[in-house]
Amino acid sequence: MTNASNTTDIFNRRESEARSYCRGISATFTGARGTEMTDAEGNTYIDFLAGCSSLNYGHNDPDMKAALIEHISNDGVAMGLDLHTNAKGAFLEAFEKNILEPRGMDHKVMFTGPTGANAVEAAMKLARKVTGRTNIVAFTNGFHGVTMGALAATGNGYHRNGAAAELSGVTRMPFDGYMGDYDTTQLLEAMLNDASSGMDAPAAIMLETVQGEGGLNAASAEWVKKVADLAHKHGALLIVDDIQAGCGRTGTFFSFEEWGIKPDIITQAKSISGFGLPMGLVLIRPEHDIFGPAEHNGTFRGNTHAFVTGRVAIEKFWSDKSFQDEIAGKSVILTTALQELAEMVPDAYLKGRGMMQGVDVGSGELAEEICGRAFEKGLIIETSGPNDEVVKVLAPLTTPEETFRKGLNILLEAAREVTQKHKIAAE
Amino acid sequence: MTNASNTTDIFNRRESEARSYCRGISATFTGARGTEMTDAEGNTYIDFLAGCSSLNYGHNDPDMKAALIEHISNDGVAMGLDLHTNAKGAFLEAFEKNILEPRGMDHKVMFTGPTGANAVEAAMKLARKVTGRTNIVAFTNGFHGVTMGALAATGNGYHRNGAAAELSGVTRMPFDGYMGDYDTTQLLEAMLNDASSGMDAPAAIMLETVQGEGGLNAASAEWVKKVADLAHKHGALLIVDDIQAGCGRTGTFFSFEEWGIKPDIITQAKSISGFGLPMGLVLIRPEHDIFGPAEHNGTFRGNTHAFVTGRVAIEKFWSDKSFQDEIAGKSVILTTALQELAEMVPDAYLKGRGMMQGVDVGSGELAEEICGRAFEKGLIIETSGPNDEVVKVLAPLTTPEETFRKGLNILLEAAREVTQKHKIAAE
Amino acid sequence: MTNASNTTDIFNRRESEARSYCRGISATFTGARGTEMTDAEGNTYIDFLAGCSSLNYGHNDPDMKAALIEHISNDGVAMGLDLHTNAKGAFLEAFEKNILEPRGMDHKVMFTGPTGANAVEAAMKLARKVTGRTNIVAFTNGFHGVTMGALAATGNGYHRNGAAAELSGVTRMPFDGYMGDYDTTQLLEAMLNDASSGMDAPAAIMLETVQGEGGLNAASAEWVKKVADLAHKHGALLIVDDIQAGCGRTGTFFSFEEWGIKPDIITQAKSISGFGLPMGLVLIRPEHDIFGPAEHNGTFRGNTHAFVTGRVAIEKFWSDKSFQDEIAGKSVILTTALQELAEMVPDAYLKGRGMMQGVDVGSGELAEEICGRAFEKGLIIETSGPNDEVVKVLAPLTTPEETFRKGLNILLEAAREVTQKHKIAAE
Amino acid sequence: MTNASNTTDIFNRRESEARSYCRGISATFTGARGTEMTDAEGNTYIDFLAGCSSLNYGHNDPDMKAALIEHISNDGVAMGLDLHTNAKGAFLEAFEKNILEPRGMDHKVMFTGPTGANAVEAAMKLARKVTGRTNIVAFTNGFHGVTMGALAATGNGYHRNGAAAELSGVTRMPFDGYMGDYDTTQLLEAMLNDASSGMDAPAAIMLETVQGEGGLNAASAEWVKKVADLAHKHGALLIVDDIQAGCGRTGTFFSFEEWGIKPDIITQAKSISGFGLPMGLVLIRPEHDIFGPAEHNGTFRGNTHAFVTGRVAIEKFWSDKSFQDEIAGKSVILTTALQELAEMVPDAYLKGRGMMQGVDVGSGELAEEICGRAFEKGLIIETSGPNDEVVKVLAPLTTPEETFRKGLNILLEAAREVTQKHKIAAE
Repeated sequence: MTNASNTTDIFNRRESEARSYCRGISATFTGARGTEMTDAEGNTYIDFLAGCSSLNYGHNDPDMKAALIEHISNDGVAMGLDLHTNAKGAFLEAFEKNILEPRGMDHKVMFTGPTGANAVEAAMKLARKVTGRTNIVAFTNGFHGVTMGALAATGNGYHRNGAAAELSGVTRMPFDGYMGDYDTTQLLEAMLNDASSGMDAPAAIMLETVQGEGGLNAASAEWVKKVADLAHKHGALLIVDDIQAGCGRTGTFFSFEEWGIKPDIITQAKSISGFGLPMGLVLIRPEHDIFGPAEHNGTFRGNTHAFVTGRVAIEKFWSDKSFQDEIAGKSVILTTALQELAEMVPDAYLKGRGMMQGVDVGSGELAEEICGRAFEKGLIIETSGPNDEVVKVLAPLTTPEETFRKGLNILLEAAREVTQKHKIAAE
Repeated sequence: MTNASNTTDIFNRRESEARSYCRGISATFTGARGTEMTDAEGNTYIDFLAGCSSLNYGHNDPDMKAALIEHISNDGVAMGLDLHTNAKGAFLEAFEKNILEPRGMDHKVMFTGPTGANAVEAAMKLARKVTGRTNIVAFTNGFHGVTMGALAATGNGYHRNGAAAELSGVTRMPFDGYMGDYDTTQLLEAMLNDASSGMDAPAAIMLETVQGEGGLNAASAEWVKKVADLAHKHGALLIVDDIQAGCGRTGTFFSFEEWGIKPDIITQAKSISGFGLPMGLVLIRPEHDIFGPAEHNGTFRGNTHAFVTGRVAIEKFWSDKSFQDEIAGKSVILTTALQELAEMVPDAYLKGRGMMQGVDVGSGELAEEICGRAFEKGLIIETSGPNDEVVKVLAPLTTPEETFRKGLNILLEAAREVTQKHKIAAE
Repeated sequence: MTNASNTTDIFNRRESEARSYCRGISATFTGARGTEMTDAEGNTYIDFLAGCSSLNYGHNDPDMKAALIEHISNDGVAMGLDLHTNAKGAFLEAFEKNILEPRGMDHKVMFTGPTGANAVEAAMKLARKVTGRTNIVAFTNGFHGVTMGALAATGNGYHRNGAAAELSGVTRMPFDGYMGDYDTTQLLEAMLNDASSGMDAPAAIMLETVQGEGGLNAASAEWVKKVADLAHKHGALLIVDDIQAGCGRTGTFFSFEEWGIKPDIITQAKSISGFGLPMGLVLIRPEHDIFGPAEHNGTFRGNTHAFVTGRVAIEKFWSDKSFQDEIAGKSVILTTALQELAEMVPDAYLKGRGMMQGVDVGSGELAEEICGRAFEKGLIIETSGPNDEVVKVLAPLTTPEETFRKGLNILLEAAREVTQKHKIAAE
Repeated sequence: MTNASNTTDIFNRRESEARSYCRGISATFTGARGTEMTDAEGNTYIDFLAGCSSLNYGHNDPDMKAALIEHISNDGVAMGLDLHTNAKGAFLEAFEKNILEPRGMDHKVMFTGPTGANAVEAAMKLARKVTGRTNIVAFTNGFHGVTMGALAATGNGYHRNGAAAELSGVTRMPFDGYMGDYDTTQLLEAMLNDASSGMDAPAAIMLETVQGEGGLNAASAEWVKKVADLAHKHGALLIVDDIQAGCGRTGTFFSFEEWGIKPDIITQAKSISGFGLPMGLVLIRPEHDIFGPAEHNGTFRGNTHAFVTGRVAIEKFWSDKSFQDEIAGKSVILTTALQELAEMVPDAYLKGRGMMQGVDVGSGELAEEICGRAFEKGLIIETSGPNDEVVKVLAPLTTPEETFRKGLNILLEAAREVTQKHKIAAE
C-alpha cells in the first residue's frame, strides 16, 4: 500500500464534498472482522452501523471469505454480465431451496444493477409496464434511493432537492402512525375509491415495512395487510422495498413473511450478497415477469463474487430456523438496552422492530452528540429520521452476545454522559 | 458447488425474462483468465465482449488477483460505505499520481453508486444544481443507462419504452455524422443562439466520444471541440460519459485526452476497477464540486475490493506510456482485420476508434448470424447499433497478439461462411 | 337564421363527441332572459344551471344589454388585445372603486386569456416564478380546468385521464371534511413541517372555498384560515380559485371576504363579465406582480364587450350592500327547500353555502334521474360531485322570488316522483 | 363611461405588469371601424396589427355588427355552455356548407375554450389519446400558446421561462429553412426511422405553415407535404395549428388547402368569430373524434355572440372565390411595398406569405424603432421573430386598397426616416 503516514490528506485533496459518513466517523479503516473494525492507528471499534444493514452477517464472515478466496484463486468468473455462470446458478439454487420454496414463493429473480436504487427503478418500471399506469403511491419518510425514478418515491427533502429537476409519477400518502391514532389506510382507501380525489389509479403501492432512513418507523402487520388488500382491489401491484429491512434484519428473512401477504414485487440489496459486495435483485411474481430481454439492463448485473458469498450466506444462515431464533434473542436484549436509553431523555421513545431498533431522542443535535460520544468510546453508530433525531442500532445479526452487550453498554454510557452534561448545563 | 449436471434448468426456472446475453451466448461459464473463458463442459472461448468493455485488462489479471486475495485474506474492509479506508486512499493516490496529475487535471473524485447509470445520474443532477437549469442536451444514439434520469438521456427506444412513464429534461441533438456531410454542431449552435428555438438553456451537454451501444459512432476531435466551446459559451457544463470509451479503450486513458478539451464532469465505470468489479465514479472540476454531504448517496459507494484492484490496474498499466503504445499497435491489427471483414459484405464499413471498432454489415440479422457462427467456433462477440447491425470487437486491451489474431481469424472465418451461405442462397 | 326545421341534425353530423350538457338537456335554445330560457319550439325553462355560475345576474340583464348594444352601435372596440381601451379603463375603475377599495385590497388586476383555466394557469405560473418552487398543493375534489397545468391541480380522474400524459408539479391533500372529524390541516401541517414527508416546499396552496364541480364541498372559515396561515408560514402563496364561488355566489363578492384572509392570488372568470361573455382575470398582491410584459399572454385578453358588461355588473350590483342582503334572503329559501328534498332520500344531506347549495342523494343515477325529470317539467338543473351524486342548484342570484320558488317546487316535485317510483319498485 | 380625463392612471395603478402592447402603442382606444382605430383624443390610426390576425375582416364589420345587435336585442342566448343553440347550429351549418364541404373535409368540429391555447391543448390531448403515445413533435420558432401543455410546444424562451416548471412531452425539430439549404425533413425522417435516435414515437407532428410569432417563417408546400407523409407513415397525427395563418390570412381559408394534404387535426381561433370575439375550435377527422363527453371541457365553449358573427363572416366572405381573389391582389401590393422597405436596410429580406408578410431588418431595435416611428405617424404595426427583428404587416384582409396603400406608405416613410437617421449617425 502506498497510502501511509498521513492518510486523510488525499481525501481532503481529491474526494468530492459529497462524502458524508467519514465526516463524523473520521478514522481510516484498515481491517474488519465480524462486528469489529480496526483503523490505521490500531484502534478497534464495535460496528453498530454494519454498512447500513449491508453487513447483517458481519465483516469478512470466514465461510464466505474462504469461498470467495477459493473462487478467485481458481480464476472463477468475476464479471459475468448476465451470462450463465456456475456461481449465479448456485446462488439461484440456494435461494430457491432455502428462501423461496420454504415460503411458498413462486417469484422469479431479476438481477438488476448492483444497487438498491437500481432494484427500485426496475421495480417501478416493471409495475408501470404491467399495469399501463404511471402513478406509484409511496409514503411519507420512505427512502428508496436517489436516482431520478427512485428519488421520486423517496421522501427526504434534502435528497429530493438534489435532483434540481421535477420528480414526478408518485403520489405521497401518510405512513402508518403518521397521523396519531388515525388509521392512515382510511385516507388511502378514500382517495383510491374517489374518482375525483386527484390520485391517479396507481401502478403500484410501494412501502418499506420498517422505514430505515426515515427514522425506524415500523408499520403494523394490520396496516400492511390493509395496504396490500387495497393495492390488489384497485389493480395496483404491491412492491415491498425490503432492501434495508430484509435479510433477517427484522427477525425473518423477509420483513413481512409472517403476515400472510404476497407482494407482487420485492426489492433486495444491501445484505443480499452477505459480504457487503454490491448486489441488487428484484423478486417478481411470474405473471408480472414481462420485461423483454435487457429491457432493464446494466453492466454489473453479474457480479459473480457477490453470487459466491451470497450463496454461502443463504446456505449458512437460512437452511434452518436457528439463525432466526438467535436474532429473536438478540432483539430482546436490544429492546431492553434501548428502553434504558429512552428513559434518560424526556419524551424519548423506542422505534423499530427486531434488530432494527433505535430511540427517538427528540433532536438531531442530541442524537448526533450521543453517537459522537459513542464513537470516541469505540462504537460506530449512526442516526436516522427526518431530523436525524433517532439513535439507530444496526448491529450485525451475528454479533456475539458479549460484544453486543459491550456495544450497547458503550451506547448507554455515551448517552448517560451526554444527557448528564446537558442536565448540569440546564441547572 | 451444488450446481452440477443440468446447469441451465435453474435459470429457466427462476431467472427473470429480462436476462439477455445468455440467450445467444448460452454456455454456463465456470472460469476465465486473460482473454479466455471456460464453460462447464470444459470448452474454452476467446472473449471479444470483455464484459462490454468492463474487462479492458482481461479476466483475473494475476496482479490484481493477488492483491485482492491478500486484501481479503487479511480481513481488509470489504464494504466501507463512504468511510475512509486505506484501500480507498491508496486508489485515490494512485489515480491522482498516474492519471490526474500527468494530464493536468484538477478534478475531484466522487464515488457514486457502483454502476455507470448511477454515475450518469449524479453527473446530470450535479450539472443541474450547478447551473440552476434543467435541460440537458444529449445526442442521437447515445446510451447512458436505464434508470429514469439516465434513461431520459439514452436514445434507445426499446429501453426508453421500458420506462412506461415520461422521460423529461433532455433535448436530443444529432450526433457527429448523423446528417451526412452537414456539420451537426451548426444546428446545435443555431438552436442555442436562438431564443425561440424551443431548446431551453442547457445545464449540460453530455456526450460519448465513441457511442458504444449506439453503434460505434466515433465523433471527430473537431466536432467534440466545437461542442465543448458551445457548452462553455452558453454557460452549460460539458459532461463526457467515458464509461465505455475510457480506461484505454480508444487508445488513451480518457477517450478525449489528446484533444485539448477539459470536460467539467467525466463519468467512469466499467473498467475502472480493472477486475470487472462494480464501481462508478464522477470526476468534477473543483468549482463544480458543490453537492452537500450525501446529497447524492448510495450504500455501495465504498466497494473496497474494487478500490484494491483499481489501484493495481492504474499502477500497472498507466504509470508510463508502454500500455498506450501496445494498444496503438493492436488497433492497427484490428483495423486491418475488420477491413477484410467489411469487404465481404456489400456496403459494409468500419466504425469506431482504437480498440473499439466494428463493422456495420447493414442488417441486424446478418450481424447476429456472424456473431452466432463465431460463438460456435469459440469466439464470444456481440453486436451493437440501433438495429444491432454492427459487429463490435471489444477485446481486452491486454490480449496477447497471438490470441488476438486467432480471435480475429475466427471472426473472419465466421463472416466468410455466413456471407458465402447467403451468396449461394441468393444464386 | 338558416337553422330551421330539424335543428339537431347538424350537431349530430358535425359537432364533436366531446359535447356534453346537450345530451341531457336536449332542447335547442333560442332565447333567454333573466332566469328563463326559451327553445326553438317555444317552450320556456327555468334555468338553475346559469352557465355553471357564469350567469349570476341572469341572462341578458337589461342594463348590461343596453350598454353593450350602445357600445357596439358606436363602433366601440370589440377586440383590444392588451391595449388601453376606454372600456377596460372603465371596468378597472369600477372594479377598484366598488370591489377592491371597500375591501382594503391592494391587488393588481391581470387580464388573462378569457377562460377560467387560463386564469388558473397564470396563477400557478406566477406563484412558481415568485417563489422559485415548483410544487403546488391542491386538494381532493378540486376542479381548476383541463389545460395541462390546470389539470394537474384538478382532481377529477375522468378529466385527468384525458391528458394522456403525465400531470406533474402538484401534491394532493385532503380537503376540509374529507376525513370525517379529523382536521385535515393537521396532515398538511405535519407534511409541511417534516423535511422527509416527500412534499416538496410548495410555491402555493390553491383552493376553492366551495368546490363547485367537486360536489359543493364547503370549507369552514377555520379550515381556510389555518391553510392560509400554513401557506404564509411556509413561504407559499395562497391562491383562492374563486371562479365558481365568487361574484356573489356564496353571498359576498369574494367567497372568503368575511374571514379576514388576504389571498396572494385570486382567480376569477365565469360571472366576472356579468353577461356570460368570456373573461378571466387574476388578482395579485402588488409585491407578487412580477410577470414581465406578455410573459403570460393570449390574444383575447382584451374582450372589450366583456369589460362593458362587467363594468355595469359591478356598478349595478356591488355599489352597496343591497344585493348581498338579497342573496342572503334567497339562500335561506334555498336551504329550506333543499332540506325538504334531502328528507325524501335516506341518508341524503345538504351541501354547499349561500346560493351554491345542493343535496347529496347518494348516487349519480338517482341525482341524474331527478334532474332529468325536472327538465321534463321545465327546469334546467345539473349534478356535480365525483359520482354526479349531488343535485346542484346554481340559480341566477337575481332570480325573482316567485320564479325561484317555482323552480324549487319543480325540483321537489321531480324528486318526489322519482323517489316515490323507486319506493314502489322496491316494495 | 366613468373613465374620463386621465385615462392611463388607472392602468398604471391597477393593471398587472404583464401588460405589453399598450407599452409601445400607448393610446387609449375608444372606437374602431374597418382598418381604423380612434383614440380618446380623437386621433385615428390605421391598424396593421388587426388583433394579431384576429380581425381579418376588420373592426366592427357592419353585417356582423347588425346581426350581433339583432341577436342581443332579441335576447338571444349569450352564454350557452355546450348546449344546442340556434346560433351554434347556424354557425355549424354555414361552416359545413361553405368551408368543409367545398374542400371535401369530413372533419368534426369541437368547440374548445375560446382561446387558441385551449384549442392547441385539446388537439395535443386528443392526439395522445388517439395514439396512446405522449411525444409531440413541434418546431423551432413555433408558437402555440402559453398554458402548460401548449407552452411545451412553443419555442419562445421568454414564454417558456414563464412556466417556472418543467415542460415535457415535446421533441423539437428544425422548421423549414432553419438549416439553410439542408432539407430539415431529412433529419426528422432519420430520427423517426432510427429506433435509437432518442425521439419517442410521436403522437403527432404539429406545425404552423407560416410561423406568425416566430418571425413569419413560411414553410414550403413540399416541406409540409413531406412532414405530412412522415407523420402518417409513422402512425402520428398531423396537427396544423392554423390559428394565425388561417381564415384567409395566407390567401385561402386554410393556409394549407392548396397543397393536397388532409391534417388529422386543425386548430382555429383568432379570426374564426370574424368580429374579434373569443372563440376557438378544433377540427378532427371523424375516426379520431374519440373524446368522451366533456373529457375536454370549459365554461365558455358556447360563446354564442361569436357564433353569430362567425356565421356572418363565413357566409359573407367564403361563399364564393371573390374574397380569395381580393386577398391575392392585396398580397401583391404588400410584397411590392415590403420589397421597397427591404431595400432600405442592408441584408434585410422579405418573409411570410399572402397577407402575412414582413421584413427581417436584422435587429429588434431597428424593427421596433421603425414601428414606433410608424405609430407616431398614425400606423399601428408590430414586430415578431425571436429577437423582434421582423416588421410584420397583419392588415385586415378587407382593408380598402386606398387605406392599405396609405398605411404602407406610412410604414415606408417611417422606415426611410429611421434608416436615414442611422446612416447619418454612422457617418
